[in-house]
Amino acid sequence: MTDVEAIFEPKTVVLIGSNIIREKVGMASPQLFRDVTYNMRKFFQGKIYVIDLHGKTKNNNVDKLPEIPQLAAIMLPPEQSIIQAEKCAKIGVKALVMITGGYKNNQRESLLKLREKYGIRILGPNTIMGVINTFNGLNTTFERNVMPKKGNISVISQSGGVGACLLDWACFYRIGISKFAFMGDKIDVDDVDLLHYLSKDEETKVICLYMEGIKNGRNFIEEARKIVKKKPVLVLKGGITHESALRAQSHTASMSGSDEIFNAAFKKAGIIRVENIEELMDAALALSKQPPMYGDNVAIVSNVGGPAILTADAVARNNLKLAALSEKTKKKIESLYHGVDATNPIDIIADARAERYRKVLKLVFEDENVDGIIIVNMLKSCFFEPEDAKVIPEIAAKYTGKPVVDVPAGGEDFALVHEVLGESTIPLYNLPEKAVKALKVLRTYGKIHEKH
Amino acid sequence: MTDVEAIFEPKTVVLIGSNIIREKVGMASPQLFRDVTYNMRKFFQGKIYVIDLHGKTKNNNVDKLPEIPQLAAIMLPPEQSIIQAEKCAKIGVKALVMITGGYKNNQRESLLKLREKYGIRILGPNTIMGVINTFNGLNTTFERNVMPKKGNISVISQSGGVGACLLDWACFYRIGISKFAFMGDKIDVDDVDLLHYLSKDEETKVICLYMEGIKNGRNFIEEARKIVKKKPVLVLKGGITHESALRAQSHTASMSGSDEIFNAAFKKAGIIRVENIEELMDAALALSKQPPMYGDNVAIVSNVGGPAILTADAVARNNLKLAALSEKTKKKIESLYHGVDATNPIDIIADARAERYRKVLKLVFEDENVDGIIIVNMLKSCFFEPEDAKVIPEIAAKYTGKPVVDVPAGGEDFALVHEVLGESTIPLYNLPEKAVKALKVLRTYGKIHEKH
Repeated sequence: MTDVEAIFEPKTVVLIGSNIIREKVGMASPQLFRDVTYNMRKFFQGKIYVIDLHGKTKNNNVDKLPEIPQLAAIMLPPEQSIIQAEKCAKIGVKALVMITGGYKNNQRESLLKLREKYGIRILGPNTIMGVINTFNGLNTTFERNVMPKKGNISVISQSGGVGACLLDWACFYRIGISKFAFMGDKIDVDDVDLLHYLSKDEETKVICLYMEGIKNGRNFIEEARKIVKKKPVLVLKGGITHESALRAQSHTASMSGSDEIFNAAFKKAGIIRVENIEELMDAALALSKQPPMYGDNVAIVSNVGGPAILTADAVARNNLKLAALSEKTKKKIESLYHGVDATNPIDIIADARAERYRKVLKLVFEDENVDGIIIVNMLKSCFFEPEDAKVIPEIAAKYTGKPVVDVPAGGEDFALVHEVLGESTIPLYNLPEKAVKALKVLRTYGKIHEKH
Repeated sequence: MTDVEAIFEPKTVVLIGSNIIREKVGMASPQLFRDVTYNMRKFFQGKIYVIDLHGKTKNNNVDKLPEIPQLAAIMLPPEQSIIQAEKCAKIGVKALVMITGGYKNNQRESLLKLREKYGIRILGPNTIMGVINTFNGLNTTFERNVMPKKGNISVISQSGGVGACLLDWACFYRIGISKFAFMGDKIDVDDVDLLHYLSKDEETKVICLYMEGIKNGRNFIEEARKIVKKKPVLVLKGGITHESALRAQSHTASMSGSDEIFNAAFKKAGIIRVENIEELMDAALALSKQPPMYGDNVAIVSNVGGPAILTADAVARNNLKLAALSEKTKKKIESLYHGVDATNPIDIIADARAERYRKVLKLVFEDENVDGIIIVNMLKSCFFEPEDAKVIPEIAAKYTGKPVVDVPAGGEDFALVHEVLGESTIPLYNLPEKAVKALKVLRTYGKIHEKH
């Protein structure tokens, strides 16, 4: 086990806090300590030790434990945290997750010296939420019972708030997560280390990164460039203007350069940049479930006319193309269903049920002029029932080379179809524009694949 | 009562259908007839007559009714629909809602002749869902129990599918609706008529329009130009490319011009254009609850750092400005809360509860350098509780001249705060970018107001 692996895959963890110390700025509090302990006891499948600095037991000292933990999560004010961190380092703990913040520069330096002296790896400080690994139940967050479902998307966040928002989003929309890491001030373990770890992690298929700045740009780009051959890397970057970049600097003590430099660097590395939290999750969902798209030609199969037109508009806005279906495909569809005009976007009319979708989709998948498919299946104003949606993963399973995304457009319509298809291989979006953007990301990754 | 008023505010309505006729293309079916009747009986507060062409009662004829209905909703195949429409016209019914579609050109002409001969107004055909008025319970849609909550946003949709999606969205997210009109083929009552009606409607504060094409562009622009002085008009236009415009033409038999022409026309008229269904609803929500913004300067008050930075980024992307807070405001905030850096975006730190928001917001509202405010209040990774959000409408009520929007960013966080503030005057958004776009629309309407 490398030392960064110990952050995510420890067999034994020690939690170090205090049931007394309450502090405003850095968030250390008895409540935080209790909540992290609660989550770890509830979810973690390994061995847990809890050291309460002000507990009643005498041997509340890390060097009195019956074994040496591989990971320590420390949630005390800076000074006490550093003392505990050194104790851990001395006995051979492999890695530290420093939850709390409020560190001054000299305190960060003291912490970093432990890394230099003992080789211990340090995540944070100021990680706030620490780490999650859905595969072994490791969860050092203090939001009780907040645990995303198991999946293959991993997230690295420099910001506690953005990370918490991504976590909340993933839980609420039941997006499958593998690892979550909150980098905080990243005095030691940084984007490059985490990218490297996740690139080797078999349970990670897509890597999402929220960053405000970077310390070693060249290493980062080189690492990413290697990874994107195997796995897509998505980045949301905060601090695009001078003003907000300044804010980011005071926020996570990171250097930030001009936005154009980042853009160029991301492009060079084959990193896909997104603009907001929803786009990040939408793109990750598509990449985690569907293959890249190798061509620009999109077919739209819809049971409603207007939303099909909005989908076609979004295809144009995203510089994709409406596939020109072969005459053979068109004729077959039109001979099967009188009244259906099989010009793309194909409106298969409001009374379409599973069977019509199955037959039309089969023909569209087999058309060589089609590189990717967007399905629109509304319930409102249509005859389509949520159960009908099961036909989509069934038929898609036979044509695994072309990506497909589904749009049960709307509020309740989306929720009802999500009940049926949420766990399937088909990514779902509540509006055409989001589905098209997701397909565009699959196309972008297809191009990166071709290039790298 | 004008004849267009009869479409929305009839005292008596007759529903005309058949419990036998089932037809594929135009959607006429016993089920449709039953479902529309169900909704009308459940919601409509006026008098309802139901004529089943194949019912057991003998006098199933509109001229045998004890009174002349003001509105008829007809849901039969084209030929039978036209016969019934003529009967209605002859006895003096003021308006028709033609639900079903599948009309040929000559059938549309036959229908239009009734308008010319009898003066009866016709909505449709092919409206699919017809009309909704939440104030009198009129609801000719066939989605059982789908009724949005009462509010002051009205929606006109040329497409049944897009209209159904907007309706589903409004219901799911509990957005307050006044009127809903599905125009369909708009052979008679068109955008201009409906805009005119809604401009006079006291229960409508914001008008939303989905259109694919327009017949009398000049009238439309002139009507809209008059309206926007009093009420904002939002447009989502389908068919922006040549291909999708062609599709729109076959979809709703409307002429569509180049997208640039529409853009210029909308601008000239003071119509605000949006790009998708969510943006339309998000913008309408802001306009329905908040005043226009008279200046570009936005203050951000947040309990999380990263999302505040993303908000500031979105402010820049949307060509708004980060307000430079006055020194007085900054000093007051910083003296109240040590550790808070009151540079905009103001990070009031993760332990902020209602009281801190109240005090800081008061100072920010009073700052002359601020034209509009975005509040970010996350729950995850913070101490903020949903109930704390009540302070926002309380404080905003004292400063009604400046718009304010709120971002309980995330999935569950948004849902929890929505439970508390959903009915309040504060528009809520699940991500910073959506709140900024909404504020941008308030700014755009402010500029339109200044101009017109």
